[in-house]
Amino acid sequence: MIEYAIGVDLGGTNLRAAAISRDGKMLNKIAGSTPVGAGRNAVVQDMVRSIETLQASLQDGKFLGAGIGIPGYILMEKGIVLGAPNLPEFVNYPIRDEIEKRLGAKVILENDANAAALGEKWMGAGREAQDVIMLTLGTGVGGGIISGGNVLHGYLGMAGEIGHMTISANGYPCGCGNTGCLEKYASATAVSAMARLMNLGHDLSALDVYNLAKGGNERARAVFVTVGIALGTALANLVGIFNFPLYLLGGGMTAAWEFFAPSMYEELKRRSFIYRENAPKIEPAILGGDAGLFGAARLPME
Amino acid sequence: MIEYAIGVDLGGTNLRAAAISRDGKMLNKIAGSTPVGAGRNAVVQDMVRSIETLQASLQDGKFLGAGIGIPGYILMEKGIVLGAPNLPEFVNYPIRDEIEKRLGAKVILENDANAAALGEKWMGAGREAQDVIMLTLGTGVGGGIISGGNVLHGYLGMAGEIGHMTISANGYPCGCGNTGCLEKYASATAVSAMARLMNLGHDLSALDVYNLAKGGNERARAVFVTVGIALGTALANLVGIFNFPLYLLGGGMTAAWEFFAPSMYEELKRRSFIYRENAPKIEPAILGGDAGLFGAARLPME
Repeated sequence: MIEYAIGVDLGGTNLRAAAISRDGKMLNKIAGSTPVGAGRNAVVQDMVRSIETLQASLQDGKFLGAGIGIPGYILMEKGIVLGAPNLPEFVNYPIRDEIEKRLGAKVILENDANAAALGEKWMGAGREAQDVIMLTLGTGVGGGIISGGNVLHGYLGMAGEIGHMTISANGYPCGCGNTGCLEKYASATAVSAMARLMNLGHDLSALDVYNLAKGGNERARAVFVTVGIALGTALANLVGIFNFPLYLLGGGMTAAWEFFAPSMYEELKRRSFIYRENAPKIEPAILGGDAGLFGAARLPME
Repeated sequence: MIEYAIGVDLGGTNLRAAAISRDGKMLNKIAGSTPVGAGRNAVVQDMVRSIETLQASLQDGKFLGAGIGIPGYILMEKGIVLGAPNLPEFVNYPIRDEIEKRLGAKVILENDANAAALGEKWMGAGREAQDVIMLTLGTGVGGGIISGGNVLHGYLGMAGEIGHMTISANGYPCGCGNTGCLEKYASATAVSAMARLMNLGHDLSALDVYNLAKGGNERARAVFVTVGIALGTALANLVGIFNFPLYLLGGGMTAAWEFFAPSMYEELKRRSFIYRENAPKIEPAILGGDAGLFGAARLPME
């Protein structure tokens, strides 16, 4: 009998779920039908329904439980969300216990960036690594730190908040109150904003800027050089703090790897004597948007 | 019969050693007689002699072994020093095995900043903490990270290199090749250099600058405001990365706490929303120069 768990990725706008076998094969994947904005009860119902739909499709398998990746800070022991800017209704709500009750099975919550890091560690570019840091470059910049095989949570589940590392002391102001956060230079949102500042256009997506760079546009390329410098500065700090052998970059922005990687490595080399002496690996993640599903599904297997 | 271990602090210029009981009492403390510059064999001999002198003074106790704090990168498993700018002769030398052989007892090496962090965790300001980061503000800035009760070493023993975190992207050039390292703003050396830049005097020690600040000198006070801003920036990054409940500052510079702490807390508050929401403790260490002796002595007890 095949043993499997279900990973759920509760995004800022929609939810996805996948059944994954104990040996890491994705058996089935579905998308939820309810927009996350539809309110807490509707979303919880959608999660339970999605999990049950996957269970129904695998009736001859043994269900081990569900893991749920959430864009927020999780108090692991209590199974509640301490903070979630994009899901305010879920804050301080006993979401784990509620879904466990409705499902009659083990449920574990995890921060979405941590789940992505776990997924890459388990079945992706971090396979067999015990120590790895993953940065997810999307709308914002998320971070997941795996130390000795386990997610570093911190006492309030807020560890890995690498997107708000100061990489330019007097740099762009950030919504968090700081100036010069990594996220203001290395997220898709930052690429759009920098393209605007470079007079490339007013409503360009990061993908638009990427396509301009591909077409040879110098200013679009300069935007990605800035992305690389910011990432190189942040990675230099992480290399010095953790001395881990592997750092992964995931998220949609990695499509532009060819345009930001050269300045990233150059900046990293310049700033980090540890990198110059014993370069750890800095690599793109390989599971794409599924990393979080793999990582979430892994949780109830342990 | 009292059980004790001996902690050795191999400094850049001299060595000190202390016998410490299993319950954390310092039983005896001595200084070595050989300057570290006298060469490897002389220093090893001095270490062994210091340990044996302490043993002789405690003949009715049970000796558990020795821990040695070294200002360098340690490969823990092999017991060798991978790099040590101030002790080049010790690099790649099997110092642990050599001393074990001469002593006939267990010996464990540790980086000196890590040993200080362990000491504060065991008997100092970090007592009972399982997760704590300690910055030692001395000639340079050292870092020790204790996660889940254990030192974070990294795969080459280089973790905790917080003194070279970039806190001002285009700041003062550092000997490591980077610009804007924390160490260039928050070490005793940095205070002397900044005092020079402020035309306070050409050969002032950090203590001289502290005394000027105490006397009301505005430029001397401004130097420590800069120290505080740098520390606040670095701490904001650490708080976001680790979400630990406790951060300790040790080393000689903490004598000037009253002059750098206000700007440190202010900068930390401004830069870190996590600090604003759930402030962890930022406190001075309490064991002074003995922290490393306590931490080193603790190693063979575990």
